Amino acid sequence: MKRTKIVDALVCTDFGKDINVKGWVRSHRSSKAVDFIALNDGSTIKNIQVVVDPTHFDEEMLKSITTGACINVVGTLVESQGAGQASEVQCRELEIYGLCPGDYPMQKKGQSFEYMRKYAHLRLRTNTFGAVFRIRHNMAIAIHKYFHDHGFYYFNTPLITASDAEGAGEMFQVTTLDLARTGREGAEVPYDRDFFGKKTSLTVSGQLEGELGATALGAIYTFGPTFRAENSNTPRHLAEFWMIEPEVAFMDKEELMDLEEDFIKYCVRWALDNCKDDLEFLNKMIDKSLVQTLESVVKEDFVRLTYSEGIQILEKAVRDGHKFEFPIKGWGMDLSSEHERFLVEEYFKRPVIMTDYPSEIKAFYMKKNADGKTMQGTDVLFPRIGEIIGGSVREESYDKLVGEIKTRGMEPSSYSWYLDTRKYGSCPHAGFGLGFERLILFVTGMQNIRDVIPFPRTPKSAEY
Amino acid sequence: MKRTKIVDALVCTDFGKDINVKGWVRSHRSSKAVDFIALNDGSTIKNIQVVVDPTHFDEEMLKSITTGACINVVGTLVESQGAGQASEVQCRELEIYGLCPGDYPMQKKGQSFEYMRKYAHLRLRTNTFGAVFRIRHNMAIAIHKYFHDHGFYYFNTPLITASDAEGAGEMFQVTTLDLARTGREGAEVPYDRDFFGKKTSLTVSGQLEGELGATALGAIYTFGPTFRAENSNTPRHLAEFWMIEPEVAFMDKEELMDLEEDFIKYCVRWALDNCKDDLEFLNKMIDKSLVQTLESVVKEDFVRLTYSEGIQILEKAVRDGHKFEFPIKGWGMDLSSEHERFLVEEYFKRPVIMTDYPSEIKAFYMKKNADGKTMQGTDVLFPRIGEIIGGSVREESYDKLVGEIKTRGMEPSSYSWYLDTRKYGSCPHAGFGLGFERLILFVTGMQNIRDVIPFPRTPKSAEY
Repeated sequence: MKRTKIVDALVCTDFGKDINVKGWVRSHRSSKAVDFIALNDGSTIKNIQVVVDPTHFDEEMLKSITTGACINVVGTLVESQGAGQASEVQCRELEIYGLCPGDYPMQKKGQSFEYMRKYAHLRLRTNTFGAVFRIRHNMAIAIHKYFHDHGFYYFNTPLITASDAEGAGEMFQVTTLDLARTGREGAEVPYDRDFFGKKTSLTVSGQLEGELGATALGAIYTFGPTFRAENSNTPRHLAEFWMIEPEVAFMDKEELMDLEEDFIKYCVRWALDNCKDDLEFLNKMIDKSLVQTLESVVKEDFVRLTYSEGIQILEKAVRDGHKFEFPIKGWGMDLSSEHERFLVEEYFKRPVIMTDYPSEIKAFYMKKNADGKTMQGTDVLFPRIGEIIGGSVREESYDKLVGEIKTRGMEPSSYSWYLDTRKYGSCPHAGFGLGFERLILFVTGMQNIRDVIPFPRTPKSAEY
Repeated sequence: MKRTKIVDALVCTDFGKDINVKGWVRSHRSSKAVDFIALNDGSTIKNIQVVVDPTHFDEEMLKSITTGACINVVGTLVESQGAGQASEVQCRELEIYGLCPGDYPMQKKGQSFEYMRKYAHLRLRTNTFGAVFRIRHNMAIAIHKYFHDHGFYYFNTPLITASDAEGAGEMFQVTTLDLARTGREGAEVPYDRDFFGKKTSLTVSGQLEGELGATALGAIYTFGPTFRAENSNTPRHLAEFWMIEPEVAFMDKEELMDLEEDFIKYCVRWALDNCKDDLEFLNKMIDKSLVQTLESVVKEDFVRLTYSEGIQILEKAVRDGHKFEFPIKGWGMDLSSEHERFLVEEYFKRPVIMTDYPSEIKAFYMKKNADGKTMQGTDVLFPRIGEIIGGSVREESYDKLVGEIKTRGMEPSSYSWYLDTRKYGSCPHAGFGLGFERLILFVTGMQNIRDVIPFPRTPKSAEY
C-alpha cells in the first residue's frame, strides 16, 4: 500500500478509504477506551491524529510509543470530530520503525532556542524549526523561479579563490599543507607544494566573478555559500552563510532599484502565498506582528532616498531629542542598523532604498556620480533587519576603475581578469547582493541568525 | 526607450516598430553600400543582424566596431531577407559602450578548448560556452523544480565541517592560523587558537547532514559545492564541484530506483524542451549524436541489473573475446567506467541501474541485504559517463550501523550526531548523489569537466 503524506491526508475527504501514513510521534495520549497519537512526517506543521483502540493492540507495545518514536500506520480515513482538521486515521495496523528512548533531547515542549542549538540535528524535528526550514526552502524556490522567469542564468562562481573580492574581508585559508610542518623551515610557507600552488581562501563574495558572467550571458545570479572569518559572536553574524548576487548588463540605477523592489516583494509574497500554515504558527509563537509586517512590505511602495537626505533626517531627529546608541556623526559616516531601522520603522514606516552613498565608505567597483564624491549605490533597508540588500551600478570605465584601485592602495595586476571586462567591450551594468539568512530572519520573525540555517558556523563552533 | 533582449527581438514580427538592442559584436562585415553587424547579448545563441548604412555614420567610428565591442543600437525592426531568422534591425542610432582592442583573446574562431580554458573569464562570450552555461542554468532549474513539485525541501548542509562523510576522502583544511608559525612550536598544531577551535575541512558530501534533514522534514535535497583534494589531473575530476543529494524518509529500494530514473529523465527532457537552440548548436559542433542520445535516454526504460548479473555479463564478454583495458577480476571487484559503459553502450544499449553491490566496496552507511555480503545500492550507469548517480537504502538499525563503523576501524563517537537519527525514532530511508557536472557533461556532449563549470579548480589551478 502506497504511503500518503500527512499534508495530503489532512485535506483528503475520501472518508472510509484505506490509508497508510508514516511519521514521528509528537504526542501520545492514552486512556482505557482510546489512544490518540499525533503524527507528523515533516510535510506540514500540522499533525494527523491517529485513533487507536487499545484493546486491539499489545499493551506494552502501545506504551512504548513515546514522543519521537517513528511508526507506520494503516487504517481508515475518517472525518475528524475535532476542530482544525478535516480527517483523522482510525488505526488498524501499527508497526514501530524506531522507538525513542527517554533521554530524547527534544522530548519536552517549550525548550529555549539556545538549548535547541546544542541539538541542531534534532531541533529539525520540532514545530518551529520545521516551519523555519520549510520557509527557507520556499524562499530558495522563489528566488530561482523569479530569476529564471526574468531571463537570468544561475551562475556558479568559485568557492575556493586566490582573490579577495572586497579587498578587505577576513578570509579562511584553504590548504592541503601539513600545518604541523609549515612553519618549521622558516617564515616562507611552501605554497609551491600546496594543492593549488599558491595561497587560496574561501570566497567572501561571488560578485566579481558574477560580473564576468553578466558581461557574457547578459544577466546572471549566484546563489551559494560565502564565508567571513570575522570573530563576531552576535545574533546577526555567521562564518558561513548563503548569498544571492544578481549582476545585469545594461542596467542603470533606476532599473536596479526597480529590480531590487520587485524581487524582494516577489519573495515575501511567495511566502505569504505558499507558507500559510508555517507563517500562522510563527505569527502565533514567535512574533505576533509577523504576517502584518510581511503584508505591509508587499503592499507599500519603497521610499527612495539619497544618503544625504537620510543623514539630514537623522540629524533632525537628534535635534528633536531622539537618542541613538551610535552617534550621528554627519555626512560621510557609515550608518548602523539602528539608524537604518529608525528611518524604516519610525520615520517612513516602510522599506527604504537608500542611494548615492559617499564613495569612501563603499567598495572600489561602484560607479561614481559626476560629483566625484558619491556613488550609485542602492541599498534596501528593511524593518527589523536594516540593510537587507546592498546594490550598486558598477564602474564600467577601465581608466576610472584602475584609478580607484590604485587610490585605495590595491594592486591592479591582482584584478587583471576583472579589468578585462572593462578592457574588452565594456558595458554599463549593475547588481546587488542579498544575504539569504537575513531574508529568512525577516520572513520567519526569528531573532537569531543561528536559528535560520540548519548547522550554523560561528567562532569556536563547527559541529556536524 | 526600453531595451529588447535579442532572444525576444529575433521572434518579434512587429515589423516597422522602433527597437533598442544592446550587445557584443560577434562579427562586422563592411562594404561600400552596407555594414552587417552580428550582435549577441547572451540571451540566446543566435545573433541579431544589425544593418547599417555607412553613409549615415562616421567612417572611423564604424571601423572601430570590431569583434567583442559592446554597442547600443536603436533602429527599425524589419523582416529579415536571410534564412534562419525572422527579423533584423535597420540601424538609426549607434552608440559605442566599449571598444575591443586587437589583442582580444577570443577574437579568432575555432580556438581549442585548451586555449580557451586559459581565458575562462572571456570564453563565456563564445557560442560554445554560452550554450553550455545556459544549459547548466536550465539543469539547475529543472532540479529545483522537480524536487519542489515532489515535496522535497532544499536543505543547506554545511561546507566547513569537522567530520568526514565517507571516512576516506582527501580533504582541504580550512584554517585562520598563520601557516608561517604553526609548525615552529613543535608538532602540536594550536587548534585551540584556530577559528573553530578544532581542525576543520571542506565537506566531501552533504549526505550525512542531509539524512538529519530527511529524518525530520521527510524528504530533502542538497544542491551545493563539495570538495575533493585529490591530485587527479583528468578530464573527469574537479577539486570543487556541485552535488545534488536527495534523502527520503520511508523510501525503499524499488521506490529509490523509480525516483532516480524519473528524476534524471525529467532533467534530460527539460533540456530537450527548453534548450533547443543551444542543443542544436552543440549537436552540430561538438557531438553529432548528442540529441539522439538524449532522446533515447528519455524514451527507454532503464535496465535494472544486480551487480552479480553484471559481473557475469562482463566475464562472458571476456570469454567471447572482448578486450578491456582494466581486467575483469570477478565478483568483489570495483567496476571501472569502461566496464559500466560496456554494459550500457554495447550490451544493453540503454541506461542501467545496477544494484546489490558487495558491501566491501561501498560506504559504511548502506543497508546490507539478508545475505550479509551485498548491500542495497542502486547506481545509475549512463552512456558516455558511466556512473552518473550513486544511491542506496541507508542502514536504519543503530546496532548494525555501529557494528559496521567499528568493523571498518572508524570511531563511533565521531558519528554520534549521525547515530542519533537511528537512536531516536529511526526510520527506513534512502537517497542518492548526482555529480552536477557529470550531468552537464552528458547533456552538453562536452568532453572535459573543466569546460562545464565556469571557473574550474584543479591541481595547481585556482584562477579568478
